[in-house]
Amino acid sequence: MTPTPDHSFDIHPPLADRWSPRAYSHTHVLTKDDLGPCFEAARWSASSGNSQPWSFALGLRGDDTFAAILGSLAEGNAVWAQHASALVANIAQLTTAEGKSQSHAVYDLGQSVAHFSVQATVEGLVVHQMGGFDADQLGAALQLDPSHAVISVMTVGVIGDPAELPEKLREREALPRMRKPLSDVVTHGVRY
Amino acid sequence: MTPTPDHSFDIHPPLADRWSPRAYSHTHVLTKDDLGPCFEAARWSASSGNSQPWSFALGLRGDDTFAAILGSLAEGNAVWAQHASALVANIAQLTTAEGKSQSHAVYDLGQSVAHFSVQATVEGLVVHQMGGFDADQLGAALQLDPSHAVISVMTVGVIGDPAELPEKLREREALPRMRKPLSDVVTHGVRY
Repeated sequence: MTPTPDHSFDIHPPLADRWSPRAYSHTHVLTKDDLGPCFEAARWSASSGNSQPWSFALGLRGDDTFAAILGSLAEGNAVWAQHASALVANIAQLTTAEGKSQSHAVYDLGQSVAHFSVQATVEGLVVHQMGGFDADQLGAALQLDPSHAVISVMTVGVIGDPAELPEKLREREALPRMRKPLSDVVTHGVRY
Repeated sequence: MTPTPDHSFDIHPPLADRWSPRAYSHTHVLTKDDLGPCFEAARWSASSGNSQPWSFALGLRGDDTFAAILGSLAEGNAVWAQHASALVANIAQLTTAEGKSQSHAVYDLGQSVAHFSVQATVEGLVVHQMGGFDADQLGAALQLDPSHAVISVMTVGVIGDPAELPEKLREREALPRMRKPLSDVVTHGVRY
C-alpha cells in the first residue's frame, strides 16, 4: 500500500501514487520489453536545446550489469536493492563531443528519470532512486567515457513483502509520505 | 497541434503529449488556483533523502514577478515568452541551512519541474523551460539567499496562434519533434 500523502490540490494519479519503496518482490522478473515504455518515456522528456544528455545502463537481476550496479551500492542500499527486478544506472553527458561543458545535463537527467518513474507507475512498477553508490567504481565498470558520469542509480520492480526487510527498514516502509507545505514550495511572487 | 513524435513503445498520454511551444495565447489568463495542481505535482516528486531542495517564484502576466523574470530573459526568449500567462523561476537550494553542499539539488529540481510539466499537460497547459536568462540578475531581483540559485525559468499558458510569432520561430514551431533512437538512450547492459 502506498502511504497516503496529503494533497492541497488533486494531482494526476501516476504522480500522486509514485513513491520509493524498499520492499521489492524477490521473485518478480522484468524483461526488456516490460521496461520499454519506461525508457521511451525517459527518451521524450525535455532538455536544453534538445541535447538529450542522458543515457542508461540496464541490468536485469542475475546479469552482469545488475551485478556491477549492485557492487557499487552503499551497504544500506544493497541490502534491499539486491532483490529488485532491475537496476538502472542513470548517466549524464557532462561534456559534448566538442568538449563543451553541458551545465544543464544533470538537471535534464533528473527530468528524464522523473518521466521514467511516472511511466513505471503507470506500468504497475515501483522505482527507488539512490545517490548512495560509488560513481567512480560504477563508471569504470561500465567503461564510461570521461565525458559521462553516473549521477544516480535506481531499482525497478514490483512491491514485495515488507516483512522480508530488515526490521529498521520495515518500520520506515510504513511511515506516511511527507512533504513541506505548498507555502514553502512557492516562495516568491504569488503565494499559496 | 503537437507535432507527432515517433514512439518505439506506447507511453502515457501526458508524457507523450508534453512539448515546449513558443506560440502562447496573448490573452489567456492563469490564476494561482489554476496552477495549484502543477505546484502540488512538483511538491510530490522524489528527492535525495526527501530533502526537497526546490522552490519556485510565480509571476502572472502583468505582475512584478513576471516583469522580473521577463527582464532576465535572453532577447530570443523574451520575444515570445512575454505573451505567456505565467513565468516561473525554478530555484535549487544548493547548500543546506548548515552550510552543507547539496550536490543532488539541481537533479532533484529537474525532477520536480518534470512533474510540474506533466501535471500542466493534464490541465491543458503548455510549459517551455529555458536556460537562456541571467541567473545572477534574477537571483538579485528575487533577493535569493546565496544558498539558493535560479537554475531554469519556464513559461506556462495555453497554445496561441503561431502566425503571431516572428517568422523564424513560426517555422520552428511546426517542425516535428525529434529524439535520438532508443538504441542511443539505453547504451549499456541490456540494449534495445
